[in-house]
Amino acid sequence: MFKSDIQIAQEAVMDPIKEVAKRAGIPEESLELYGNYKAKLSHELFENVKDNKDGKLILVTATNPTPAGEGKTTITVGLGQALCKLEQNAIIALREPSLGPCMGIKGGAAGGGYAQVVPMEDINLHFTGDIHAIGAVNNLLASMIDNHIHQGNVLEIDPRTITWKRCVDLNDRALRDIVVGLGGMLNGIPRQDGFMITVASEIMAILCLATDLMDLKQKLGDIIIGYSYSGKPVTARDLNAQGAMAALLKDAIKPNLVQTLEHTPVLMHGGPFANIAHGCNSVRATKLALKLGDIVVTEAGFGADLGAEKFFDIKCRKADLKPDAVVLVTTIRALKYNGGVAKEDLKEENLEALQQGIVNLEKHIENVHKFGVPVVVTLNQFITDTEAEIAFVKEKCEALGCDFAPAKVWEHGGEGGIELAKKVLEVLETKPSEFKYLYDDALSIKEKIHTIATQIYGAKDIAIEANAAKSITRIESLGLGHLPVCMAKNQYSLSDDPKALGRPEGFTTTIKEVRISAGAGFIVALTGNVMTMPGLPKKPAAEAIDIDEKGVITGLF
Amino acid sequence: MFKSDIQIAQEAVMDPIKEVAKRAGIPEESLELYGNYKAKLSHELFENVKDNKDGKLILVTATNPTPAGEGKTTITVGLGQALCKLEQNAIIALREPSLGPCMGIKGGAAGGGYAQVVPMEDINLHFTGDIHAIGAVNNLLASMIDNHIHQGNVLEIDPRTITWKRCVDLNDRALRDIVVGLGGMLNGIPRQDGFMITVASEIMAILCLATDLMDLKQKLGDIIIGYSYSGKPVTARDLNAQGAMAALLKDAIKPNLVQTLEHTPVLMHGGPFANIAHGCNSVRATKLALKLGDIVVTEAGFGADLGAEKFFDIKCRKADLKPDAVVLVTTIRALKYNGGVAKEDLKEENLEALQQGIVNLEKHIENVHKFGVPVVVTLNQFITDTEAEIAFVKEKCEALGCDFAPAKVWEHGGEGGIELAKKVLEVLETKPSEFKYLYDDALSIKEKIHTIATQIYGAKDIAIEANAAKSITRIESLGLGHLPVCMAKNQYSLSDDPKALGRPEGFTTTIKEVRISAGAGFIVALTGNVMTMPGLPKKPAAEAIDIDEKGVITGLF
Repeated sequence: MFKSDIQIAQEAVMDPIKEVAKRAGIPEESLELYGNYKAKLSHELFENVKDNKDGKLILVTATNPTPAGEGKTTITVGLGQALCKLEQNAIIALREPSLGPCMGIKGGAAGGGYAQVVPMEDINLHFTGDIHAIGAVNNLLASMIDNHIHQGNVLEIDPRTITWKRCVDLNDRALRDIVVGLGGMLNGIPRQDGFMITVASEIMAILCLATDLMDLKQKLGDIIIGYSYSGKPVTARDLNAQGAMAALLKDAIKPNLVQTLEHTPVLMHGGPFANIAHGCNSVRATKLALKLGDIVVTEAGFGADLGAEKFFDIKCRKADLKPDAVVLVTTIRALKYNGGVAKEDLKEENLEALQQGIVNLEKHIENVHKFGVPVVVTLNQFITDTEAEIAFVKEKCEALGCDFAPAKVWEHGGEGGIELAKKVLEVLETKPSEFKYLYDDALSIKEKIHTIATQIYGAKDIAIEANAAKSITRIESLGLGHLPVCMAKNQYSLSDDPKALGRPEGFTTTIKEVRISAGAGFIVALTGNVMTMPGLPKKPAAEAIDIDEKGVITGLF
Repeated sequence: MFKSDIQIAQEAVMDPIKEVAKRAGIPEESLELYGNYKAKLSHELFENVKDNKDGKLILVTATNPTPAGEGKTTITVGLGQALCKLEQNAIIALREPSLGPCMGIKGGAAGGGYAQVVPMEDINLHFTGDIHAIGAVNNLLASMIDNHIHQGNVLEIDPRTITWKRCVDLNDRALRDIVVGLGGMLNGIPRQDGFMITVASEIMAILCLATDLMDLKQKLGDIIIGYSYSGKPVTARDLNAQGAMAALLKDAIKPNLVQTLEHTPVLMHGGPFANIAHGCNSVRATKLALKLGDIVVTEAGFGADLGAEKFFDIKCRKADLKPDAVVLVTTIRALKYNGGVAKEDLKEENLEALQQGIVNLEKHIENVHKFGVPVVVTLNQFITDTEAEIAFVKEKCEALGCDFAPAKVWEHGGEGGIELAKKVLEVLETKPSEFKYLYDDALSIKEKIHTIATQIYGAKDIAIEANAAKSITRIESLGLGHLPVCMAKNQYSLSDDPKALGRPEGFTTTIKEVRISAGAGFIVALTGNVMTMPGLPKKPAAEAIDIDEKGVITGLF
C-alpha cells in the first residue's frame, strides 16, 4: 500500500534548518529560528548578498487544472530535489499554504509523496504566522474604516462604496454575505459586508509584491478602501493606517526557509489567490533565492493561462525578473479528461481521447513561446499511463518545438526527476530565453484585456459589460490605467466557460466586473463571480484530523 | 523628561534567550526558538522536571482599578527583578497581551518603565502566535457549526440557541452584532451572530486551564456550542471538531519564555478575560515555573475581588496550586480616587480622602485573609505621593495585620523593588499560608454565588433574575452544577454599580445571566452586560504606530 503524504513526511529525518541554511550560503546570524526546522531570513541577508550574480529562474506551470490533479507543486519540489542530486546549487521558491483548505476538502499544499516540503504539519497549519499577520492587518484596516465612520466620518466615506472586506483564514460560507453594525448606536453604522479567506486579501498580494519594508508601507497606504460621497477614492493612508499595518507585517515580510524531504532548501513565502490576485510567491523570496542559488525553481497558481501569464506580466514586470525556462506540467489523465473522458475512465488507455485533449497542452506551449521563454513539458506519471500514451505526448511536444521529459517524483522523489532535471539543464545551456511581456503598460485597460484574451485564451473578441466599462473609466480617470491587468477567470477552461475543455475557439471573453487593487498595483478584470470565501464540504477534512499525547498529528493531507 | 516605555524597551540589551533559559535550568534542547529572544518550552521539559520540588507561589493582585492606574503588571515584573537582585531563583509567570487594545486605547501589557518584559514590540504584536492560533480554533468550530446546519443539520441544532461566537483579536465594534448567512441558498442559513475579541473566547480559558494535550482535547470536546431543537446540549465533540482544534493548538499550549529588562526569566502564556473567564495565565506555565524556580511571581486580572478570588477558587482549585503569599498593589492616587477625589486633583495631598478611600484596600485585605493567605500591601509610588500619605497607608496595613512595603519599580526597576522583595521573603519565611477555597464544589450554584457576593463583595444579599434562574436549573440538570462559578462583574466597584467606589455596603448583587463554559469547566454568572468586543476610540493608537526602514517601531505603548 502507498503511504499517505503525512506518513511519509513524519518518517522523514529533517536536517536542522541551520545546516540547510549553511549549505545554501546563509550564515547562522541571518536566521531567525522558529523551532529547529523553520527559520525566517533577516533583512541583513538581503544586503549581504545583493552583489551576487543572479541564478537561473525556472517557472513550473501546468495545463488547465482537472479533477484528475496535475501535481504542479509536487513536480516543482521533485525537480528541485533532482537538481540537487545532480550537484546543482538549486533552491525552490514556493507559496505557503492557507489553513482553510486544509480543514476543508483540498488539503495542504506542500507537495506530495516523496516530493514534499517539511515540516508538513507546521507548514499546513500556522507555519510562521505570516497568514495570521496578514489577517490581522486586513481586519485592522476594516475596523479603522468602520470606526472612522462611527466617530463622525470626517472623510465622508460613503458606506455603500466600501470595497474593503474583512477576512478569516478558514472556509466559512456563512461569512460571505453579512450585515454588520447592528444592535444600536454604540455598535457603529449598519452596512452590508462580507469576509474573504485571508489569502484573497489585497494585503497578501501587496506582501508578495513589496520589495522592502518601505515599499510595503507605501503600497499599504495606497490601498483604496472605497469612495467618499463625492466620489473621491479613500485610501488606507487617509485613515493613517499604513504605519501600524506595516509594523504588524515586520516579520511576515521576511521569507521563510524550510526544506524538502531530501533537504533541498525551500523559500516558502506568501501565497495570493491566482484569480483576483497574481498567484505567485513573494518577490522578496524569489529575488533572494536568485542571489543564493544557481538555479531557482518556482511555480504559479492554476494553469499557464492564468498562472504563467500573471507571473510574466505582473510579477516579472514589477520585480524586473527574467525567467530562463518554463516547465509545463501535465498528466496523461488530465489530457484525456480534456479530450472528453469521464473521471472514472481515465485509467484506461485511450489514444484517441489523448489526441483530442492534447490541444490544451499545445495551446499552453504556444502561449509560453509568446513570452520568448523555452518550454520543457513534463508528465507527472501515473502507474496507469501506457508507453504508447507517453510516446504520443513526447512526439507532439517535439513537433511543437519544445523539449519533453517525464517525471516520477511522487513515487521516487528526486531520483524520479533526474531525466527532467537533465533536460532542464540542457535547455538552460542551449536555449537562451528571450523573455518579453505580452503587452505594454501604456496600452489602455481595454487593449490589455483584449490582448490577453485573444493571444492567451484564444478568444475571438472581448465584451465588456456596462458596469465594468464604468469602472474602467473611473480607474483611468484616477490615473491608474497604466497598471497591469490581473485576470480573474475560471481556471478550468481557457475560455470563461469552465466546461469548454481542450482548446476552445471562436468564443468571446466577457468582462463582468473590473476592480482596482491600488496597493498591490494591478487592475482586476473578472469574467464571472469569483468565490473568495470557500465553504466546507459535507464531511470537512477537519473531522478526521487528530493529535495524540505525543503531539503526533494524523488525518492532515 | 521621562522616556516612553517603548524607548526604554528598545534601549535594553537583551540576553539571548538561550542564556536566560540556561540560568533558569532549562536545557537548550527544551527550547523551540522564535528568533533569538523568544522561545517555546517543549513537552519534554515538563517530564524532565516533574520530580523537582515546587517553589513558593506569590500572587500579585490589586485594589479596584481606577482611571489613575495601579500598575499591577509593573509591580509583578519589578518584584521579580528585585528578587533576582537579592540572588533568589525567581521566575515571573504572566499573561500574554491581546493585540486589540494595543491598536485601541489601552496599550500593551508587558509592564512599564524599568519594569518591563521584552522584546516589547513582539510581545504586544503577534508574539509567538498563540492568540492567532486560538482565534483560528474558535473560528474553525464556528464554521463547522454553520456548515453542519447547512449540510442537513443531522444534530438538529436550533440556530437560535447557538452560543458559540466568532472572534477576532481586534477592537471592532461593528462585529458585535451581525447577521450571517445572507445572500441565498449557497451561503448557509441566515442567523444572528456576533464576534468577540479573541481573548474572550472559551478556547483561551481552556488553553489556560489544560494540564496537557490530552486534557486540552478533552476540554475542547466538552464545549457546549448550543442546543438541539429538543433542548439537548450540542458539543464540539458531537461535531468531531476536537481533534483538529487540539492539533491547531499543538504549539500554543507550550509556554513562552521571555525576559525582563534585567534578564529575569518570564513565562508569558495565555491571557483570558477577567470577567467572563478567570483572568490568569496558563496552569501549565505556572506549574512549570514552580518546578523551575524557588519563587514564582504571578498576577491575576482586575482587582482582588475578581482576580484573586478566581485565581484561588478556579485556577488553584483546578490545578491544585497552593499560593504562599499575596502582594496587594495599590496607589495613593487610587485610594484617594476611591475616597471621592476627581482624577485631575489626585496629585494634591489629601489625607482625608485617603482615609475615606482606604476602606477599599481594607476590604481586599480582609478578603484575601479569608483564603488563609498572608498579605503584603505595596504602594506603586508616584512622585506626587507625600510622606504623610505613605505613612498613613503603612499604619493602616499594620493595624489590619498585614505587611507593607512601598515600591518604585517603574522608575528604578528591580532596585526600586528591593524593600518589597525583602518584605515578601520575610513573610514567606515567617507566615505560613493556610490556603483554603472560599466555597465547596458541592454547594448549589446559587449558594456559591451567594458566598462570593456576600463574603467577597460585601453584598447583603443576591438577586437572581428569571432568565438566569432558568439557566441555573438547566446547568444543574445537565449535571454541571458542581463546577466553580466565574463571576462577571464590573471591575471598578465591589458592588455591581461601577460608580460605588470605596467599600459599598448594604447592596444586592443582581445576577442577570448565567452561562456555562463546559469546556473550561466553570459557570459564568453575569451581573450586567459584559462587553466582549471593545471598540476603537476617536483616535486609535494604531494611527500613531509606525515602522522605519530599519524595522524600528514607534508609537506602540
